[in-house]
Amino acid sequence: MNIIDIINKKRNSQILTSEEIQFVIDSYLNNSIKDYQMSSLLMAICINGMTEEETINLTTSMLNSGKIIDLREIEGIKVDKHSTGGVGDKTTLIVIPLVASCGVKVVKMSGRGLGFTGGTIDKLEAIPGFKTKLSIREIIDQVNEIGICNAYGNNNLVPADKKIYALRDTTGTVDSIPLIASSIMSKKLASGVDKIVIDLKVGNGAFMKNLEDAKKLARLMIKIGKNHNKEVVCILSNMNQPLGNMIGNSLEVLEAMETLEGKGPTDITNLSLIIAAYMVSLGLNISVNDALEMVKQKLIDKSAYNKFLEFVNYQNGNINKLIVKSKKLEIKSTKSGFISKIDTEKLGYVVMELGAGRSNIYDDIDYSVGIKLHKKIGDTVNVQEKLITVYYNKEVENIHERIMNCFKIVDDVVEIPNLIYGVIE
Amino acid sequence: MNIIDIINKKRNSQILTSEEIQFVIDSYLNNSIKDYQMSSLLMAICINGMTEEETINLTTSMLNSGKIIDLREIEGIKVDKHSTGGVGDKTTLIVIPLVASCGVKVVKMSGRGLGFTGGTIDKLEAIPGFKTKLSIREIIDQVNEIGICNAYGNNNLVPADKKIYALRDTTGTVDSIPLIASSIMSKKLASGVDKIVIDLKVGNGAFMKNLEDAKKLARLMIKIGKNHNKEVVCILSNMNQPLGNMIGNSLEVLEAMETLEGKGPTDITNLSLIIAAYMVSLGLNISVNDALEMVKQKLIDKSAYNKFLEFVNYQNGNINKLIVKSKKLEIKSTKSGFISKIDTEKLGYVVMELGAGRSNIYDDIDYSVGIKLHKKIGDTVNVQEKLITVYYNKEVENIHERIMNCFKIVDDVVEIPNLIYGVIE
Repeated sequence: MNIIDIINKKRNSQILTSEEIQFVIDSYLNNSIKDYQMSSLLMAICINGMTEEETINLTTSMLNSGKIIDLREIEGIKVDKHSTGGVGDKTTLIVIPLVASCGVKVVKMSGRGLGFTGGTIDKLEAIPGFKTKLSIREIIDQVNEIGICNAYGNNNLVPADKKIYALRDTTGTVDSIPLIASSIMSKKLASGVDKIVIDLKVGNGAFMKNLEDAKKLARLMIKIGKNHNKEVVCILSNMNQPLGNMIGNSLEVLEAMETLEGKGPTDITNLSLIIAAYMVSLGLNISVNDALEMVKQKLIDKSAYNKFLEFVNYQNGNINKLIVKSKKLEIKSTKSGFISKIDTEKLGYVVMELGAGRSNIYDDIDYSVGIKLHKKIGDTVNVQEKLITVYYNKEVENIHERIMNCFKIVDDVVEIPNLIYGVIE
Repeated sequence: MNIIDIINKKRNSQILTSEEIQFVIDSYLNNSIKDYQMSSLLMAICINGMTEEETINLTTSMLNSGKIIDLREIEGIKVDKHSTGGVGDKTTLIVIPLVASCGVKVVKMSGRGLGFTGGTIDKLEAIPGFKTKLSIREIIDQVNEIGICNAYGNNNLVPADKKIYALRDTTGTVDSIPLIASSIMSKKLASGVDKIVIDLKVGNGAFMKNLEDAKKLARLMIKIGKNHNKEVVCILSNMNQPLGNMIGNSLEVLEAMETLEGKGPTDITNLSLIIAAYMVSLGLNISVNDALEMVKQKLIDKSAYNKFLEFVNYQNGNINKLIVKSKKLEIKSTKSGFISKIDTEKLGYVVMELGAGRSNIYDDIDYSVGIKLHKKIGDTVNVQEKLITVYYNKEVENIHERIMNCFKIVDDVVEIPNLIYGVIE
């Protein structure tokens, strides 16, 4: 077997065997296949695709490149939640205490943000003292004790994914359904949980820009899960505008807490309840409706809020020390009418430039900066009315204009968009 | 401008601007675009193609990455000849003295062989003492004095091509009409000649396996030439079997000399006459028929043969010292019938393994080894009749079987195939 023959096969839209895929992963990890050969193959995969079977084989080879966490010491069904990434997406912080307060064991592995999307680990690290790097021993003990844990998903879990993802990021080969599916699923399968709910974001603030592709990705991930005897549910949710009103690490933690106190924005509240309901339904083997009632109750009676405080405290976080140290700038609308579109990705990049995100993995983050949206799609706005509050510590060039350019304001009434496009199980 | 956007554009089958192409070439040469990014882009080009305009722009950017040789000190029209590479292709050695003996100035740059195809420079270096590395000054002086020169085409002429070609070779991105066209034409344009005849090989012993693709490539190269005010003629010739009977460096020099003495095989004789005729027609501005008569005469009266000796002598070659020092092995047919197919590429690889060629650019060559074909397509053969003589210095495993496997022998009469498929001007 040699890499040039394999590249040529995929270049000519032929199907790679499981042995060929295994050879590629092994040889890339031991450096006998070079980065420039791998990127050529990845581009051929991006353009010519992979069959379901090839994608399943790729996921298995990637999964087997590292260790699978053994969580058998935790009794009961372990559920995990994954988001494909969006702007202002703090659902994890709300969902996992909701689910844990229902008695379902939550073992959640998260990552850091890159580019226009944020990452849960960065948000948690905005809480002074919060410890995200936990050993497997610590994770097991914590979940056995308080039923919830959110740790940094050590990339060494799936070394093939780590290496391939870094390459894709710099070679224009991120946007590929089989590559996305195998990347997400290999990591989720390696984390050792039993059931997984995936919040698959669709829209101009997500990697998946259209619903058809998102559905394909969902069905593929469910098939991969089935192949490994793991139940996977995908919730397709709208990412054509930021989720909630806050974007930025500390700001999002504060908004998540508000939501857990029952005072959060409608969209983030509803999406969190739905995701939590599916996780509880899987974890307790009850209907989604019953699960939804249960999680709503946990929101109302503050047990989810208390679970959040318990969990933060357990991981050494000092929530009282979370403060937003930044200057404020109000951006006022230069037009009046109805908000019809928000360029979410562009807005995400503005927030990244403020210092809330990373343009590369070595960048430092300023937890205190970000923005607050005062208006969302469907809202009316008048000239000189507040549109955005910017929380900043360094100037960003043309920020007024750049933010205004993210909003489309029209004269006709605009309907409030659907939050959830559907659920695929 | 950034490389990821450019990769994504080509990935989505969009057309790159001349500025984007220039940016890619400049940035790749100064290492700000990495190999793994370039190979990703090259694969996207292989699969999604390039327009004529993009290919012309790519050629210009590559051409401008280095120096263009200034041959204005040589009076008259300078013609060059290029072959896309085949097995047993010693036409250059025959064609250039034919053309020069007609009074047309020949400035020929050649390369070394790689893989299953040979290279003219290796064949010339089989002649003891022959000097292939010449300065521009030496080239100009030699052509002004004797009308002919064949030098090693310094790769630094088109540094972008050198770097990109090495990458294509290891990333499955060789087989692409726009990339082949820009690679050939940038080098030919940089060599400073006025008119170019390209022998475009088609068949199982060539890079172009089918006639349709070869025609596309021919038309594209002619357009690129026109764009730079250089007349280009493409002769599409059959490479479904080796050219002539000899494969191997010293053996091919000897066969070229036999041909110049009027005693060569029909195919190599005829192809050389045709290529020479087109070159003379371009160089003297006469009809191809008149030119053909002229080159035939130069073959018959031995003036081409004498020009060959003069040229070899001028470049320090000692033709009398050319000897074939190797053992001989006769391969006899195990079947009787008519030869219907010869797997030319496979045969080329056998000869490479004997030591006549290189699997990588650092390999040494044994000039004395190679093979002689006693039978070609259309010939009858009996059991135990000689099919091939192997000239060897080291054993090659299963050589009998591997050579027999290159021949298909059938019961029905087989027609002698066309040598030339057509000429595109």
